[in-house]
Amino acid sequence: MRARDLVDDFPTVSLDSPALEAAQLLAEQDLPGLIVVDESGLPHSVLPGTQVLRLAVPRYCQDDPALARVVDEAHADIFLRSLTGRTVRECLPQEPRELPVTDPDATVLEIAALMARTRSPLVAIVDAGRLRGAITLQALLDRLLAS
Amino acid sequence: MRARDLVDDFPTVSLDSPALEAAQLLAEQDLPGLIVVDESGLPHSVLPGTQVLRLAVPRYCQDDPALARVVDEAHADIFLRSLTGRTVRECLPQEPRELPVTDPDATVLEIAALMARTRSPLVAIVDAGRLRGAITLQALLDRLLAS
Repeated sequence: MRARDLVDDFPTVSLDSPALEAAQLLAEQDLPGLIVVDESGLPHSVLPGTQVLRLAVPRYCQDDPALARVVDEAHADIFLRSLTGRTVRECLPQEPRELPVTDPDATVLEIAALMARTRSPLVAIVDAGRLRGAITLQALLDRLLAS
Repeated sequence: MRARDLVDDFPTVSLDSPALEAAQLLAEQDLPGLIVVDESGLPHSVLPGTQVLRLAVPRYCQDDPALARVVDEAHADIFLRSLTGRTVRECLPQEPRELPVTDPDATVLEIAALMARTRSPLVAIVDAGRLRGAITLQALLDRLLAS
């Protein structure tokens, strides 16, 4: 079994997509993460859901739990305010990371190792310069473990 | 809105649970991760799904994509072999990490920041020395963003 046997369609967002729409896509379709494509349609970033969440958390709260606790609970819409009017590009983390991207020949073990190493429940599959889709952690586990 | 308004029941595994059963629980119930409890019933570890996957990937493959590619595709059952006969305790990562655990008073922002910082799509809620349940990334996003 190789990546080509596991790959499935997966929605993408572009660098210029509104950040709020990207977050809503994640929530509404119960996606484990987002694939952000560049102008050529290839993966620019693959964001695990937890890192999409990061887009919406003000920087001053990310590393200081005490500050995050002080913010009044009525302000749940702080997420909406953080995201509204910004594009995905403006919200992406700055630091370059290993992209969870591989090709259709990848073995199951390779996909699993890539997910574990990059902590991404989502691997994008690229073939001949085109995005073919993605493999999710759940799809992988379902094929390997579910009885 | 605080953690107490979002917390829900969540299955747990113990340190002495068979690792294979833990992985199957994750797959069959589509969980975003596992809460491993100690003898007192409190969270010992909270493992995102990608790190549960790590339990099943032989160490020699985790950091070397080339080796992972060489492993014959027929051997998808390498996962089963890796896990069979081992307990969760034997498979846990060695390095101590910040636990995604908080209390019922945590604000939405605090939970989101904790998920983002620990890269865990799952936060365990502990109150008065007892595990009360968990909040998943999807539950959090559903409440904040879904229309």
